Amino acid sequence: MSDAFIKPIPALDPPYYTVVFSSLQTETLSGYGEAARHLGELVKEVPGFLGFESARTPGGIGITVGYFRDEESIDTWRRCLEHQAAQERGRTEWYQAYSVHVGKVERSYSFGQS
Amino acid sequence: MSDAFIKPIPALDPPYYTVVFSSLQTETLSGYGEAARHLGELVKEVPGFLGFESARTPGGIGITVGYFRDEESIDTWRRCLEHQAAQERGRTEWYQAYSVHVGKVERSYSFGQS
Repeated sequence: MSDAFIKPIPALDPPYYTVVFSSLQTETLSGYGEAARHLGELVKEVPGFLGFESARTPGGIGITVGYFRDEESIDTWRRCLEHQAAQERGRTEWYQAYSVHVGKVERSYSFGQS
Repeated sequence: MSDAFIKPIPALDPPYYTVVFSSLQTETLSGYGEAARHLGELVKEVPGFLGFESARTPGGIGITVGYFRDEESIDTWRRCLEHQAAQERGRTEWYQAYSVHVGKVERSYSFGQS
């Protein structure tokens, strides 16, 4: 299990961007785990990518938050062909519904980060 | 279980704000469930509150995203005394670590929302 699943991303120096991806899955999850792991590695190669975190309530919604330095780094990730292929597969197989909200972070704070 | 846990918040008309709260809990969760439910009801009374969604991977991190129309509505919620008391209890009892990232949303989109 990657760090993305086990600890919060600390507050970063603004400005940066949060991409909130919240989703409700279908019951057709064949290939999902492998794709998620692969994309989780691939995104690390995007210049300006700062980290991500992900949580899913069993039987409920999942929320993944990606952290990016600027709009350009988000665009780079959006144009990644493997990411686009996974999104298409997500719409036809893995997700009943999802939403994406892209926000420019102007302030942040943390508690208890070592 | 409230709607916040079972379906994604759809894309809204920008601008609005996302407040990403990601956390790692302790094992001292006495009173946490009641407080979370109470605050989840109380926040609905804040003018400009648009909704929230929450997910937690068992044994891992939790992510709650609050959606607000403007800075003023976030400030109203931040100044709520019951919210402040819960935050204090969170730091001393419920959370090992958490982060908050406040972002101004400029674009959003949804798939499969009815």
